[in-house]
Amino acid sequence: MTDYRTVDAHGLVDWLAARPSLSRRLGGTSTDWHVREVSDGNLNNVFIVEGPAGAVCCKQSLPHVRVDPSWKMPLTRTDFEAAYMRAVTPHVGHLIPALLDFDPAMHLLAMESLTHHKVLRHALEDGSAQAGFSSRVGAFVGRTGFETSWRARPFEAAMADLAAFSTNTTLTRITVDLVLTDPFRAASPRNHWMSPELDTAVTTLQGDRAVQRAVTHLQERFLSAPQALLHGDLHTGSIMVQGDDLRVIDGEFSLMGPIGFDAGLYIGNLLLHAAALPDRQDWMLDEIRLFWRALDHEFRAVWDAHPVGGDVGALLAPQDRHRIQTTALHEIMRDSAGFAGAEMIRRTIGYAQVSDFALAGDRVREAEARHRALEIGRHLIVQSTRLDTLGALIEAARR
Amino acid sequence: MTDYRTVDAHGLVDWLAARPSLSRRLGGTSTDWHVREVSDGNLNNVFIVEGPAGAVCCKQSLPHVRVDPSWKMPLTRTDFEAAYMRAVTPHVGHLIPALLDFDPAMHLLAMESLTHHKVLRHALEDGSAQAGFSSRVGAFVGRTGFETSWRARPFEAAMADLAAFSTNTTLTRITVDLVLTDPFRAASPRNHWMSPELDTAVTTLQGDRAVQRAVTHLQERFLSAPQALLHGDLHTGSIMVQGDDLRVIDGEFSLMGPIGFDAGLYIGNLLLHAAALPDRQDWMLDEIRLFWRALDHEFRAVWDAHPVGGDVGALLAPQDRHRIQTTALHEIMRDSAGFAGAEMIRRTIGYAQVSDFALAGDRVREAEARHRALEIGRHLIVQSTRLDTLGALIEAARR
Repeated sequence: MTDYRTVDAHGLVDWLAARPSLSRRLGGTSTDWHVREVSDGNLNNVFIVEGPAGAVCCKQSLPHVRVDPSWKMPLTRTDFEAAYMRAVTPHVGHLIPALLDFDPAMHLLAMESLTHHKVLRHALEDGSAQAGFSSRVGAFVGRTGFETSWRARPFEAAMADLAAFSTNTTLTRITVDLVLTDPFRAASPRNHWMSPELDTAVTTLQGDRAVQRAVTHLQERFLSAPQALLHGDLHTGSIMVQGDDLRVIDGEFSLMGPIGFDAGLYIGNLLLHAAALPDRQDWMLDEIRLFWRALDHEFRAVWDAHPVGGDVGALLAPQDRHRIQTTALHEIMRDSAGFAGAEMIRRTIGYAQVSDFALAGDRVREAEARHRALEIGRHLIVQSTRLDTLGALIEAARR
Repeated sequence: MTDYRTVDAHGLVDWLAARPSLSRRLGGTSTDWHVREVSDGNLNNVFIVEGPAGAVCCKQSLPHVRVDPSWKMPLTRTDFEAAYMRAVTPHVGHLIPALLDFDPAMHLLAMESLTHHKVLRHALEDGSAQAGFSSRVGAFVGRTGFETSWRARPFEAAMADLAAFSTNTTLTRITVDLVLTDPFRAASPRNHWMSPELDTAVTTLQGDRAVQRAVTHLQERFLSAPQALLHGDLHTGSIMVQGDDLRVIDGEFSLMGPIGFDAGLYIGNLLLHAAALPDRQDWMLDEIRLFWRALDHEFRAVWDAHPVGGDVGALLAPQDRHRIQTTALHEIMRDSAGFAGAEMIRRTIGYAQVSDFALAGDRVREAEARHRALEIGRHLIVQSTRLDTLGALIEAARR
């Protein structure tokens, strides 16, 4: 058994050369392979390796946060990413990169290289994204949300995921702190914001007891409503696009949770983009409609296709299925609205913000954009338990 | 390391003699010890060992159901019972027997012997139970329900319990099947009922789509609302009483779940006793009131005593606590009502019924009692999402 060591380009070539199927995919011999480091997220090292016959993308956990070596972190995050990919591949294999290999000792994962794809957030920023991409993301959430739920399989299978992914506490801690706690309290040193423009808005928000009560409800939903296996970090930086092809990447935050958490983070990021660029608001609202309709459609379709299903729902008469589906989708929408609001706020004043705001143009417009994001975010959070439908969400997001 | 073997009286004496602290508790030497098998539940072997100085109760898992050796079963159930006792002892140590030892290889557990205690169900049947016992059970559920929740501790601690107890699938399967599925469908061969008296009622119940929809909701709550660490089988046969002293035993069904599941099973068993003996209805309704008021009081009191608390609620202003507690208790009540109804039905027509019905006197009265239990159970199930308060529950249970 190999012990863990952080690989550089040479180490990675040796690792690949020892794996016949990866070597065949690259072609030629190891001296023909070209390694490029493309680390972009905050956490891990990522490499693209190209050979005469093809390419491979490799991702390795570091014992610390990549962008902050003083922030120590266990190595298991690629383990959870690999486990997530294995779990969802049967249902959405066409919407994620193929997992090619995983070395648990090295915490090193090899997957299909998406060389010609672009991160969706960047494609939105540089204007190359083609309208309509969100229907694929909606299908992804609708399919994974049903297929990994208690409704689709014997409860023992869902409980095995619950037992396994409930050990992913290091990355879940990041979500609990950075998404669902810190941005909503003044005493959190990791917050930062455009000052003095946002000072008053931030003070008001962080003293708003209606927000605190509603975020408390979201904390509870996130931690104690394990409906399905979630991606856990489904923003526009976790999605790659090329023409019609769309792939969801970076599943290291995966856990069992409320389906509306994945949906809400995605919706929140579309609304952040709309806040930054008001002339794209109509487009982004259309993307939200496409996203939700695809989610709704796939969720019902895969449910209808499971004649037996899981233990939850085993008693249900076929004539009642549509009605129970609608109830379930209303609950997913309520959660989505709340988590979308939390995501908008944390990406505007929290530790890890989004680059979309730089598109606003100048400082005055950026401050307006950030104010809009805080206002819509707050509204979605405090109204979320009343937002049952797509129409209600769109209306709330349009104010 | 010892390998597993089923112990008889001699084997148990050898096992105890090898454990100095247990030997000291018994006193004298092993030849002075008297072993009595008292197995009473469906699953395990239980022994009382008495020595000159004291007594010990020992419980061992068998590789099958005790009352049905053809029903094979893994040995880990005492492991979960020991883990449950360790988890709740800091909070309700005075309401459970002391855990003295646990041998994981033998799946053999030693605990304080409650030699002079009586099973609450038997004390109710023989008329020796003293009114007022339910306030202790309410305190038990209120304290465990808060202290093992996400509100009382860092989420990592609750998630560790979620990971550990989500492997207790063998006993959870029994709950899913026998409490939340089989009694509600005609095709379940393990159901049995007083025939022909109950034939029509059973056929009607099992064809009732409103019941099927409501039980589907209960299935979902049971499996995907892990609010706190539950006992998982809190009926009057899992409680021992002697005068004012009350202890909860038999935690092998423990799992993370909705607090209303423990509360509902207990309430359901009080209502079953009332259905069997109508002249005890007022007493049993008083017990439910005592139970709920103690649950409500302890739940709020331990919450108020946690100034920092867990990640869920970290943002909450002290002035909002009472309001959020009330919301949480309404949710617990709704769940309790539904699970109480399911328990009443499964104990009347399911695999494992209650002996209380034998108290009705004659066959005509027993049939009336069982009809009442089915009717109240059905009403609680279909109305549960509207039953927010103790008053609403009592009214629904009184019809």
